[in-house]
Amino acid sequence: MRIPYDELKSEFKRILLKENFPEPKAELCATIFAQNSRDGVYSHGLNRFPSFIKQVQEGLINLNAEPEKINQFGLIEQWDGHRAPGIYVASKAMQTALENSKKHSIGIVTVKNTNHWMRGGTYGWQAADAGCIGICSTNTIANMPPWGGKEARLGNNPLIIAIPRKEGNVVLDMAISQYSYGKMQEYDLKSQQLPFPGGFDSEDQLTVNPKDIMKSKRSLPIGYWKGSGLSLVLDILVSVLSDGNTVDDITRSGKEIAISQVFMCIYKEDLKESIINDILSFTKSSSPVKNDRVQYPGEGTLLTRKENLEKGIPVVEEIWKKVKEM
Amino acid sequence: MRIPYDELKSEFKRILLKENFPEPKAELCATIFAQNSRDGVYSHGLNRFPSFIKQVQEGLINLNAEPEKINQFGLIEQWDGHRAPGIYVASKAMQTALENSKKHSIGIVTVKNTNHWMRGGTYGWQAADAGCIGICSTNTIANMPPWGGKEARLGNNPLIIAIPRKEGNVVLDMAISQYSYGKMQEYDLKSQQLPFPGGFDSEDQLTVNPKDIMKSKRSLPIGYWKGSGLSLVLDILVSVLSDGNTVDDITRSGKEIAISQVFMCIYKEDLKESIINDILSFTKSSSPVKNDRVQYPGEGTLLTRKENLEKGIPVVEEIWKKVKEM
Repeated sequence: MRIPYDELKSEFKRILLKENFPEPKAELCATIFAQNSRDGVYSHGLNRFPSFIKQVQEGLINLNAEPEKINQFGLIEQWDGHRAPGIYVASKAMQTALENSKKHSIGIVTVKNTNHWMRGGTYGWQAADAGCIGICSTNTIANMPPWGGKEARLGNNPLIIAIPRKEGNVVLDMAISQYSYGKMQEYDLKSQQLPFPGGFDSEDQLTVNPKDIMKSKRSLPIGYWKGSGLSLVLDILVSVLSDGNTVDDITRSGKEIAISQVFMCIYKEDLKESIINDILSFTKSSSPVKNDRVQYPGEGTLLTRKENLEKGIPVVEEIWKKVKEM
Repeated sequence: MRIPYDELKSEFKRILLKENFPEPKAELCATIFAQNSRDGVYSHGLNRFPSFIKQVQEGLINLNAEPEKINQFGLIEQWDGHRAPGIYVASKAMQTALENSKKHSIGIVTVKNTNHWMRGGTYGWQAADAGCIGICSTNTIANMPPWGGKEARLGNNPLIIAIPRKEGNVVLDMAISQYSYGKMQEYDLKSQQLPFPGGFDSEDQLTVNPKDIMKSKRSLPIGYWKGSGLSLVLDILVSVLSDGNTVDDITRSGKEIAISQVFMCIYKEDLKESIINDILSFTKSSSPVKNDRVQYPGEGTLLTRKENLEKGIPVVEEIWKKVKEM
């Protein structure tokens, strides 16, 4: 079943207004939830919307709060998100980072006490659409063991790197776990194995069985010890730069709220797209394995976006029905 | 066989002076080659020294060149390395980035036309030792296929992220291939298999056999498609910010020279080590798998450094003999 983008967005907005979101926040959050589904990130679009509303109803998100600049050192602004909706805070923070970068070549905004931003790539696209290189990261609740350990002590703290390009931005939106729990659930629901090992089972063996990993709670960082280290340093960066909560703090609180994020933009007026295009065409000149295609990060997003705008956005009927009744 | 640090360093310096390195460059390069071995990165210490000297003798490195600032936009300095020794240029660039960050909170130096910096971690430690967060990357000759492709079109472009900490800096020094060719050679020489798949064989199958990967030239990016995307965006970043050569340009030239790098520092006067220590102790509280230990990035380096300074630095006798005769 496919639903037109506009219909998806207005349903979201209707519900957000009903939940007492102020109009501009309802408009922004509805747009970004709908865009996430439009771009194929259903896990952080429609599929996530009901649990977001549940968090709102539980009072975990301060609908009327505004993020506030509480400090500045050099070009770096430190904000307190005051637990406002994470999408709203992240959009504002990236907007300020990109505006500052246009003045000073670099803009950095750190945010503490914010909430889940849904799809990290959203803010990468935002920066790149405005002509800026955008880099951002967030911490999360612990959901991945460090290399050599059994219990989850790391977040899957994503790293987003976006580069502007007229023919289509290059946007890497990379969580540090090989597969998210949402992705493992998808495979499990279809009774499929993962294409590559995604974690350890309870016997310390790498496995492609999503059920075993969801049971052991031992998902795998990309590159084994390498991703484990990367996740850890990303937590340090977002926490020390924002003076905000760490993965440890968030995990102890038991809820994934009041998290820490960093938004960075670089603006180069004479950024040479010819260099980017050279890199992309060289990369794509590698002959394909079997029926695979060599794609650049963000290329698939644009294809999905086009298809979903033309044909409507695929929805899980059960979730769509639930949302219509909210 | 173990050699004292000072002896290793003075051998390197003797040879560099003989090869007509100006004194300060000979001193710096000898120190860093010796430190790389001291810290356990033998592949970019003693073991790499003979091929570095070969490059010098072939005239690929301009001994007398000085890196030059050719442009500045906002806080970002663009340098031309003029193909001076890569270690020398990278040290100077990171020094300027860290000094600028102490004035403006952020410092970025981009460098084009530079040469191999040997161990990327060197410059991360340099920044962190000076109390700064240091982030840097470089491109390389193509040595890894992009995800879905057969021929090498990506570099294993490392990402270094270093965070200062009195009890021991946290330094992630991560090449984007799961195993370097040097590491695969080490396993092969001992007739060992890799602990985890490190690439594809000629039949498109993932393999732990280093010989098959060295033959197919299809090493694996960390996290499969994820590392492939990360390597590509790192190449874009270093190339567009420096207006320098891409992996494509370097590969076409046939020699890994005149490469592009970026050095970035962030300085936060009141950086709270308590936050870092909290993250490290939480991470380490994960109970170990078998006899493994949970370590933070950089922890192993400090242990090796201590041991090698006490007992001497392990050397491959054959290479050490060769260097003594140079």
